[in-house]
Amino acid sequence: MEWINKQNVLIVGLGLMGGSYAKALKRIGCRVTAIDKSEETIKFAIENDIIDDGTFKEDISEFVKEADCIILALYPNAAIEWVRNNVKDIKEGIRITDVTGVKSCIVYEIQDILGDKAEFIAAHPMAGKETSGVESADDRIFRDANYIVVPTDKNTEEAILWCENLGQILGFNKVSILSPEEHDEMIAYVSQLTHCIAVSLMTCKDNEHLKDYTGDSFRDLTRIARINENMWSELFHVNKESLLREMDLFINEITGLRNLIADDNTEAIKEKMRLSTKRRSKFNTK
Amino acid sequence: MEWINKQNVLIVGLGLMGGSYAKALKRIGCRVTAIDKSEETIKFAIENDIIDDGTFKEDISEFVKEADCIILALYPNAAIEWVRNNVKDIKEGIRITDVTGVKSCIVYEIQDILGDKAEFIAAHPMAGKETSGVESADDRIFRDANYIVVPTDKNTEEAILWCENLGQILGFNKVSILSPEEHDEMIAYVSQLTHCIAVSLMTCKDNEHLKDYTGDSFRDLTRIARINENMWSELFHVNKESLLREMDLFINEITGLRNLIADDNTEAIKEKMRLSTKRRSKFNTK
Repeated sequence: MEWINKQNVLIVGLGLMGGSYAKALKRIGCRVTAIDKSEETIKFAIENDIIDDGTFKEDISEFVKEADCIILALYPNAAIEWVRNNVKDIKEGIRITDVTGVKSCIVYEIQDILGDKAEFIAAHPMAGKETSGVESADDRIFRDANYIVVPTDKNTEEAILWCENLGQILGFNKVSILSPEEHDEMIAYVSQLTHCIAVSLMTCKDNEHLKDYTGDSFRDLTRIARINENMWSELFHVNKESLLREMDLFINEITGLRNLIADDNTEAIKEKMRLSTKRRSKFNTK
Repeated sequence: MEWINKQNVLIVGLGLMGGSYAKALKRIGCRVTAIDKSEETIKFAIENDIIDDGTFKEDISEFVKEADCIILALYPNAAIEWVRNNVKDIKEGIRITDVTGVKSCIVYEIQDILGDKAEFIAAHPMAGKETSGVESADDRIFRDANYIVVPTDKNTEEAILWCENLGQILGFNKVSILSPEEHDEMIAYVSQLTHCIAVSLMTCKDNEHLKDYTGDSFRDLTRIARINENMWSELFHVNKESLLREMDLFINEITGLRNLIADDNTEAIKEKMRLSTKRRSKFNTK
């Protein structure tokens, strides 16, 4: 269990996710350092004992060179860019993982850049919160959530196990394995499409005068309509093909339901509702 | 406050909603009777002290004749039908209210049938639960919910006040007034459209293999996809015009977002997300 050794873990990007990783890893005895562009973030994290050391300065080579493993907690394009700029300083043979919500667009490219120097094993911690920043960091967000390891053919068994073990150490409820393509199709449906729906439900109609009348259904469906536009527009862009496929499935389906209602085809409407009820009852109801 | 007198309240249809009304009204001292087609339901309700008396039999005239006010807790078409069949036995000058989720299609017709004999004042208790039946009855479901009084030109000030007072007695968080047309437009958007979205999200794709990967977003958006197909297909049917208008707004909007994503129009996507975030932040976050 090498995670329990006092190894140096470098977290790149100290937001909600990076900060939550830091808290969990410090607790088990890792030495945690971090790189972030914000001076305030690094100072806050050191003062609050979230990290042992870190820098907001341009020259980060000292931190990169001493890292025994690296966690990329950046947006997808920034993660690729960071590896490209820092590969020269990365210690030989270490493992690098990430937290990004899309995989095909970054995994292969990062593995190509690293070559034989270090092993990149991708992971997606499916946890979050409506607030962001290291001030919101809290590793309890992992408790009910899923952690997905996303290996390619280039990954070793040891790195896959190491990454699964990280998910367990962080306290995730369930750790599983998917290919980058399976992952991206799944995430397009269960996460990206749902965000598109929530946004469209809010933007399709001026609804301020309705806020006194909304019940749980409307509030549940639009909770995620408060959205970080920089992160999500990038996530949509880098997973565009999968997302468009899922959006077309959904738009086609709801247009079909609209036409059944217009045609008073009650039996077909009920059939859809029965299928929906049957499928939903297999999900946990939380 | 005539509600506090020991008047006879007749509840027609003893399901989740009728049973929850019964519990709240018995507690303040009303004598509560009920009519339901199910022998089991009536027996359960009497044994559990939810109602004082009731019948599951064909001949209900005795119960109708002694009612000082009537609460129709039936589906829309059944409510109209019930009033038509029983108007002859209804006591002169009493007030009748209901709990149905659509209004234009029933309010005018019931008021026409009653003429000057009794006053129908419509109301929509916007509360619910995923389970149904009198066994699930629980007036705590009213606590965080909205109660809407839906008068027409034919209603008296006294009946409107009486109905608002009923909402307060039942323990609703907020009592407000809307016209039948305002109500139906609102409900088509905040409730019926959201149910169509949840159903379509479940039926557009075989998703059983994805159930281990769904996070809060997907669970929130599909909680209401477990749906009573008889009630909801009727609610959609009787509010068809309003619902189709809202569905078209939404389908048009999400198709527009799909096209922005296909065209890589990042600035326009972010603008939508900013509007969505701004609007959602005005709603309570519960």
